[in-house]
Amino acid sequence: MRFRTLEFTGSTLRLLDQTKLPRTEQFLDCTTVSDVFHAIRSLVVRGAPAIGVAAGYAMVLAAQGADCRSRAGILAALNQAGDYLKSCRPTAVNLAWAIDRMIAVANNSTANNCGELVTLLETEARAIEAEDRTMCEKIGANGEPLIPDGATILTHCNAGALATAGIGTALAVIYAAQAHGKKIRVYADETRPLWQGARLTAWELQQEGIEVTVLCDNAAGSLFAAGKIDAVIVGADRITKNGDVANKIGTYNVAVLAEKHGVPFYVAAPQSTIDQQLISGEQIPIEMRAPEEVIKPGGVIIAAEGTRVYNPAFDVTPNALITAIITDEGLWHGGRWDGRT
Amino acid sequence: MRFRTLEFTGSTLRLLDQTKLPRTEQFLDCTTVSDVFHAIRSLVVRGAPAIGVAAGYAMVLAAQGADCRSRAGILAALNQAGDYLKSCRPTAVNLAWAIDRMIAVANNSTANNCGELVTLLETEARAIEAEDRTMCEKIGANGEPLIPDGATILTHCNAGALATAGIGTALAVIYAAQAHGKKIRVYADETRPLWQGARLTAWELQQEGIEVTVLCDNAAGSLFAAGKIDAVIVGADRITKNGDVANKIGTYNVAVLAEKHGVPFYVAAPQSTIDQQLISGEQIPIEMRAPEEVIKPGGVIIAAEGTRVYNPAFDVTPNALITAIITDEGLWHGGRWDGRT
Repeated sequence: MRFRTLEFTGSTLRLLDQTKLPRTEQFLDCTTVSDVFHAIRSLVVRGAPAIGVAAGYAMVLAAQGADCRSRAGILAALNQAGDYLKSCRPTAVNLAWAIDRMIAVANNSTANNCGELVTLLETEARAIEAEDRTMCEKIGANGEPLIPDGATILTHCNAGALATAGIGTALAVIYAAQAHGKKIRVYADETRPLWQGARLTAWELQQEGIEVTVLCDNAAGSLFAAGKIDAVIVGADRITKNGDVANKIGTYNVAVLAEKHGVPFYVAAPQSTIDQQLISGEQIPIEMRAPEEVIKPGGVIIAAEGTRVYNPAFDVTPNALITAIITDEGLWHGGRWDGRT
Repeated sequence: MRFRTLEFTGSTLRLLDQTKLPRTEQFLDCTTVSDVFHAIRSLVVRGAPAIGVAAGYAMVLAAQGADCRSRAGILAALNQAGDYLKSCRPTAVNLAWAIDRMIAVANNSTANNCGELVTLLETEARAIEAEDRTMCEKIGANGEPLIPDGATILTHCNAGALATAGIGTALAVIYAAQAHGKKIRVYADETRPLWQGARLTAWELQQEGIEVTVLCDNAAGSLFAAGKIDAVIVGADRITKNGDVANKIGTYNVAVLAEKHGVPFYVAAPQSTIDQQLISGEQIPIEMRAPEEVIKPGGVIIAAEGTRVYNPAFDVTPNALITAIITDEGLWHGGRWDGRT
């Protein structure tokens, strides 16, 4: 990748500010848990895997800023930071997953010394990041054989390098296909309200030399009707045990269109996106976001202040509409969650 | 209605500038054919029926501005103005329909006197406007029985009073239901790229005291999945003989979602929207609009200049997905175009 979504210097988490793309490549330096909380909340860093990696480093910052006189003090600080960070965005399971993993490392260590504990945590956070990169590569490798040469692929939102520490999830499959010499064209749903498709997916595919065409979300139907889409690939923010998928609002619309037109619908996500606590999609908490994202996009007033707005950040696609879930561990076929290949 | 979409003073066509709504209620005065052409092209006035009415008055302005020395001169001016106006927006059939009707009036009259011919044309244009108002009332009356008390209705784009000279087409049904004492709630798709749903439908329903909630187009699926939508009503820009419907881009997506969820999908449009020349939807010319509408919404840059964009203004919903077409002449059931009730 020509760019780096996030980087930890040892005392600072440097984030590529995704709210500023594609206009400018600007970085935000986070030195406290609160900095990271606000960066995640305001979508400076977004995408379930990248949020998990950022949360790991936020826990290092929490330990560095803790009362160092006792092991209990650090553990308390970690628990407090963890609860705080988990409240930041409720849908992505990777956030809680990374935080719990960091806390477990601290709990399971016998380290009493502050510096030792911080070092352990930094090592763990760097491991989460490294695993994330490896995960992306594996998703790309597992998904690539599903994509025919010359395919035109529709994607929604950004499940790319910008959503991970590596080459992405949904877009990893496309990058892997390109690396295998396949010619791939991409249609990118703009993804209202925050335009991650137009702002981020188009930008990163252009950086990597892949032909991309942006469309309004509601124009996807006419592309399917014209037979122009060979496959859909999207990411996931949370997957339940039965294979239902929470992903960016609008994903379900695309899945219904794909089913109607007999087009394969793939979800690409790390194994860590699977929430083993939840049986099916209706149990997934859906984050509702501010009305202004819809009626004051980019500061432009498109409806009167006080207008009622329905603005869920995610929707749920039931497993029956999913051709396969591509994870770093293999392919899972919709509904048959035990059918690993 | 608390507002007036258009008004002809005898020498000026005064248009409520819909590109400025909901921020300000501003009027644009058109005194030449070119003024009206640009007003239609730039969507100051939009909606198939309103475009037809505006085109009728534009033909009056054409006659008023013509070389008055001969009948032939006026007829030539009308034909030239008609060709020019028809090129303005290719999809809405009402535009051509109104122009042809105005030209036929001139052709069929024996008037040699300029003033007499202009008067005839003004009378005809006013008749088109009056018929449009009556048409709206009839659509409302014909559609109202389909809407249960307490219904929650999804609509897309603006097929309201702002799209006609009267109370609208799709929204006429809602206004008629309200007038019958029914409690109706409306979800309005924002309707990218130009936000007619957020800017216009929400505004006019608020003016008329009807509860309306705005959503991004891609959030509609989750409303259907949650069982929150009882019916869909949309307008139409052109209907072919077999009952296929061209309407604002995204209409087809909604129709597919409605089918998937067993929700009735109604199209409300005047009889004049039916193009007797076309057998089925694939024959309808679809207007492609500028990339900037998508990637520079409201002046905000959301993708790099030069980014490839797919921006059709309309899509086609096949008759099989349409529960009924509500016209001023009655109800037509999808596919059975001869099944007038």
